[in-house]
Parts: sequence; C-alpha cells; structure tokens
Amino acid sequence: MAERLITEPDLDDLAAGAAVLGTGGGGDPHIGRLLARAAIRAGGPVPLVPLGEVPDDAVAVVVAMMGAPTVMLEKVPAVEQAALAVQAVAAYLGRRPTHLICAEAGGVNALVPVVAAAGLGLPVVDADGMGRAFPELQMVMPTLYGLGATPMSIADEKGNRGIFDTVDNKWAERLARSATIDMGCAAMIGLYPMTGTQAREALVPGTLSLCAELGRVAREARAAHRDPVAAVTSLLGGVELFGGKVVDVVRRTEGGFARGEAVLEGFDGRHGELLLRFQNEHLVAVRDGEVVATVPDLICVLDAETGAAVTTESLRYGQRVRVLAAPCDPRWHTAEGLELVGPRYFGYEHDTVRVPTGPAGHPHAGHVESGARA
Amino acid sequence: MAERLITEPDLDDLAAGAAVLGTGGGGDPHIGRLLARAAIRAGGPVPLVPLGEVPDDAVAVVVAMMGAPTVMLEKVPAVEQAALAVQAVAAYLGRRPTHLICAEAGGVNALVPVVAAAGLGLPVVDADGMGRAFPELQMVMPTLYGLGATPMSIADEKGNRGIFDTVDNKWAERLARSATIDMGCAAMIGLYPMTGTQAREALVPGTLSLCAELGRVAREARAAHRDPVAAVTSLLGGVELFGGKVVDVVRRTEGGFARGEAVLEGFDGRHGELLLRFQNEHLVAVRDGEVVATVPDLICVLDAETGAAVTTESLRYGQRVRVLAAPCDPRWHTAEGLELVGPRYFGYEHDTVRVPTGPAGHPHAGHVESGARA
Repeated sequence: MAERLITEPDLDDLAAGAAVLGTGGGGDPHIGRLLARAAIRAGGPVPLVPLGEVPDDAVAVVVAMMGAPTVMLEKVPAVEQAALAVQAVAAYLGRRPTHLICAEAGGVNALVPVVAAAGLGLPVVDADGMGRAFPELQMVMPTLYGLGATPMSIADEKGNRGIFDTVDNKWAERLARSATIDMGCAAMIGLYPMTGTQAREALVPGTLSLCAELGRVAREARAAHRDPVAAVTSLLGGVELFGGKVVDVVRRTEGGFARGEAVLEGFDGRHGELLLRFQNEHLVAVRDGEVVATVPDLICVLDAETGAAVTTESLRYGQRVRVLAAPCDPRWHTAEGLELVGPRYFGYEHDTVRVPTGPAGHPHAGHVESGARA
Repeated sequence: MAERLITEPDLDDLAAGAAVLGTGGGGDPHIGRLLARAAIRAGGPVPLVPLGEVPDDAVAVVVAMMGAPTVMLEKVPAVEQAALAVQAVAAYLGRRPTHLICAEAGGVNALVPVVAAAGLGLPVVDADGMGRAFPELQMVMPTLYGLGATPMSIADEKGNRGIFDTVDNKWAERLARSATIDMGCAAMIGLYPMTGTQAREALVPGTLSLCAELGRVAREARAAHRDPVAAVTSLLGGVELFGGKVVDVVRRTEGGFARGEAVLEGFDGRHGELLLRFQNEHLVAVRDGEVVATVPDLICVLDAETGAAVTTESLRYGQRVRVLAAPCDPRWHTAEGLELVGPRYFGYEHDTVRVPTGPAGHPHAGHVESGARA
C-alpha cells in the first residue's frame, strides 16, 4: 500500500487481509473490493489517516453494511448507498463529516468506508471498531467507552432512508436489524458519530494497514513458495490449531444471521477432529472434545495451500483447510468486553479460552495495546 | 363542544363518536380520552380550526398512534410520546409545526392529536385523513393526492426515536410497522407533513366535529329515552343492516393486526344471520349469504340498547348488537381509492358493495362532498 493513500492496486491485499480478520464472517470482502475499485476509479485514491493524527475536533462517522453475508453474495449494493448513509446521518447531525471510520476491519466492512470516502472525497481513519468482525452493531469498542451508535442512518438501494436515535446501542441494533430485513437483508448504515478525541480512545488502531499487510505477506509467501498460512499466523501473533478436511457442514439463516457448525477431520491422523461453531463468524473451536479457542479471540479458517481465508458461507465438504487462532484487542477480555462479545452472549455455556500467544506479531496487531494512541 | 375549543367536558362525546367512526377498530378511544384529559388539564384547552381556515402556508403534521389495538389496551402510552413524535419530525424538517392533523377520526387516533396539541400549545385541524379508521398508514386521502407520508417520525415510551424517508407510502408503512413491533406493538408517529393548501385539498373536513356530534346525539337520545342507534344512523346518513346476538367470534393477532370473524344471529327471527369479517376494523358484512356492505363504506357495530360502539376486540358471545352501514367519503370509491382500501386489498374476492344512503345526514359526514373546501 502506498504511504497513506489507498489506491486501486492496494485493494487486492486489503481485501485478502480483511477476509482473514473476518474470521469466517463479515461478508465477502471481494464485493467490497469491486465497489471500492469502481469508487476509486471515479473519485480518485483515498487518504488513509493514522488514528494518532486525527484532529481532536474531527467529525468522524462509521459507515458499514448491515445484513446477512449469504444475502450480500446475491444482492450487490449500489456505490451511492454508502455515501447516502453518511450524508443522511450528517444532515441529521447538521455537521459536515471530516473523516470516515471502519466498523469492522474483517470482511466487506473493511472496504465500505473506502467506497464512501472515494465518493465523498473524505479520508478514512486507519483503525476500526473491533479489530475483527462481529455480527451485531453494538459489538464495537466505542460501546465499551460509552459512545452512542446513534444518531444513525440506514439506506437501501431503492432510495429508502431511516434515522434512529435510541436509548442504547442494543436498541439501535434491534431497530436497524428489522429495517435491514425489510430492506431485503442488506442495507448501508452510518453510525457512531464521534470526535477525533473520542476516536483515538475508542477505536482499534492500525487495522486497515494490518489488513493490507496480511494480504501482502500471504501473497509474497505464495510467490516465494513459502507457507502463506505460517506467514499470516506469525503476523497475527497467533497459533495454528488444526489442519484437516471438512467432513460436515450444517448451516441455516435465522433472523438475518448465518448460523451453523462444521466438522474437520485431521490430515494424516495428526489430530482427531475439530468442531467449529459459527454465527456469521467462527466463534468456538473444539478440538477432540476440548474447547481450544473462543470468541472474542480470532478463529480464522484458511485454505491449506493458498492461505486465503474461507468464509463460513463458502465452507464445503472435502475442503482442505488450516485453522488458526489469534489474540484480539485485549480490551475485549475485560469483564465489560466479555459481556458484550464473550461466548455466553452467543449462547455457549462456557468461559472464554484465551489463545496462547505465539511469537511477537505485527506492531499494529490487536494484541499490542494502543500502539497508535497519540 | 364549545365553539372552536376542545375542553375537558367535550372529551366524552368526542371519544364516543370516534368509537363509532372507528368501525370496530382504530384502538380504544377511551385510552385517548384519558390521555387527552391529562394533557388538557396540564396544557389547557385545544383550539379546533375549521379546515377552510387553515392558512395556505401552515406547517401541518399528522400525529397518530401505530400498533395493534389489543396491545394498546395493556400498554398505555406516555403523554410525552405524542409531543415527542411531532417534535422529532419537525426537527428533521427544520420547520416549526403550526397545526396538528388527525390521521383517522375513528378510534384512539381521533384523540391523539388533542394530546399532542395540548402538550405543544398548537391547534388541531377539524378534519382527518380518512373519515373513519383503516389499519395501514398509507390508507389516507393524502396518498390519493400524491402527498408523502415521510419524512415521518416514530417514538416509543422508552425514548427511542426514528425517522423514515421513503420512496413511497407503502414503504413507510412497512418500515414503521417493523419498528412498531420492535417497540412493543405500540408507538407514536408524526407524518404527512403538509401545507395548509395541501391539507384543504387532501383531508376529509369536519370529522372531529362529527365525532363530537355523534357522541352528543347518542347521549341525548339515551337521556330522552329515544333510540340512540337510530340517532347515530341518521346523523351518518346510513342504514341499519341487522340486529342480533353474537353467537361466534374467532380472532387472532397476525403481524401486528387483530384479524377475525364474528357471526350474529337475528333477534326474534327477523333475519337469519350476519357474518362480520374484520382486520382491526369491520370490513365486510354478509347477511344470509349476501354481501350487503364492504369497506371503504363504514360498518359500525353498536350496543343494541346504549348505541355505544363495540370494538372488534371487545366483541364477545351473547352480546346484543345492532349493525349499521354508512357511506364513506366518496373519493374512496374512485378506482385509485378502491385500489388502496377496497375489499380486494384486504384479500376478499369480491367487489365493493356501496351502502344505499338513508335520509340526509350531518353536513360534515363523509358522504357530503368537501363541504369545507375553501
């Protein structure tokens, strides 16, 4: 990636890395890549501002796509929708936005702010709200810092728009989820308006750069006939949990979410089996009956050969994959963080299992605390 | 009712008449009466402005309650909610509202604008959007005149608020209906912002006065030992269809609506039986196998002795009732009107049956065309 400017050639690495941080969910970033390419061709490259350099009085807005990843594959949104969502919330606030923020660096939402930014001529902050992907809109670090998701906007491709102003962020999720379902299970949202001061405190720094670097190291490893999975695992400071073949997948779409389980059988009898439980994202990994990794840490399923991330919706019988676990931003492991995104919130009856950290990772990776705080 | 001022003593007649125009639905106006009483005690009487006297450049907003009548009986809204819904849409428009409008003169929504008006110190227009009650928000005369339901607001008793800005009025209904269900099946909405010029063209004139007069004639008939049902039927210019006892009621709440059927058995063998079909409101009357009245005309079920309106949710076995039919505003009988609110829209496979009009009714009744157009 060119220094502090997102250009068209950067998008492949950015999308590949976003797929890894998507931990199986977050929507297919390749749709975001196509939209971002069109937007950058029309509007020019997008400045990427380090979190520490965002001015105190910035008017920063999160822009994201909301909906079921399985639907996004079939219903590609219009480029104008992302800009419309930002404009709608800005008009309600009566403020001109100065910076756009990424809700989740994992999946399609890593690219959505780039789409809106190219359309509106605004910079994107090199940070995100979670350092990975999560399925609900209140599941961001700003919620832990007491910031409101609302006023938020929602926009569909037909021209329908809505604004919500709620008593808490779970109410914002609830109302926006219903509207998203009405809008065809995919909508653009503009939310968490915040100042630069608030952004520096409440966001996970450096995560868009991390996406681009994850894409780059995997690509370079493949070109040099080295192991791309090992390169990605090392950069994330994680550990490889399992390598094997997918022997069973069960999935269903419920209330706007893709839920299910997958069973992997070990290569060459190295392990017995790994059970993956997912709700949009991979949330729990159980190896031979033992829980070895859980949300909020990252559980990433990668193609065994290419290192490309495998989304929950593309998991299929016979696929040869490797599964890694990597530490999330440590603030997710506080009591408040676990209440918001721990295994029990997702309905699993056990405590969080933290990933044993591997060798030192990327300086921007979530497990390194607040490297970019000004 | 005191000339052009709604005071506390007016509310009983107003509520009783609103229950008649509710045609079995529209929510219990006695809840509205209680809220209006509290609001008038706190804020003073509410000016009632004839439709013809609304200034061309007025900023008029419809305020109403949305939801399932069966739920409203259990979840009484806060007075502040009605004012909040008006303020939210006004803030979005960046205009100060000058007049409030009644969505439907039938049921609780006849009183809701009085509640908001007392709270905000604004006058209410003597008119409404339909001249009766209907279950969906696009089912108002302003839709026939091309006016948008949006920007519209929605507010619950917890403090959650939303704004919708949609491509058509059916989308407004769809998004607001989902939000209403999330909000507990009852919410306050502010919608159809319009000028005075638009209001004079698109509303049904004189319907709040008509409510008060319906309540008055029934009350005076009872006091004088005359027949209150005959007095109400005459004022509406309608005909009595049937008198009998309720022998069967089936109802269910589906997607936020109260749906069902009731069967009446005639008094003294005068008739065989009458079947009533309802979806919040009574929509079809079938006498001895023949369809004798349908929506959009008014089908009102009244207590056989007192003339008090019987709502669909309070219909019960053994009740002795009389059923009358009365003409609606004739604009509902145009092709566009029937497309919006005719029997086929509600899923009935037959054409509209128009009520044979009785002796001349109230000068403000719906069947007298636009008496108050300036």
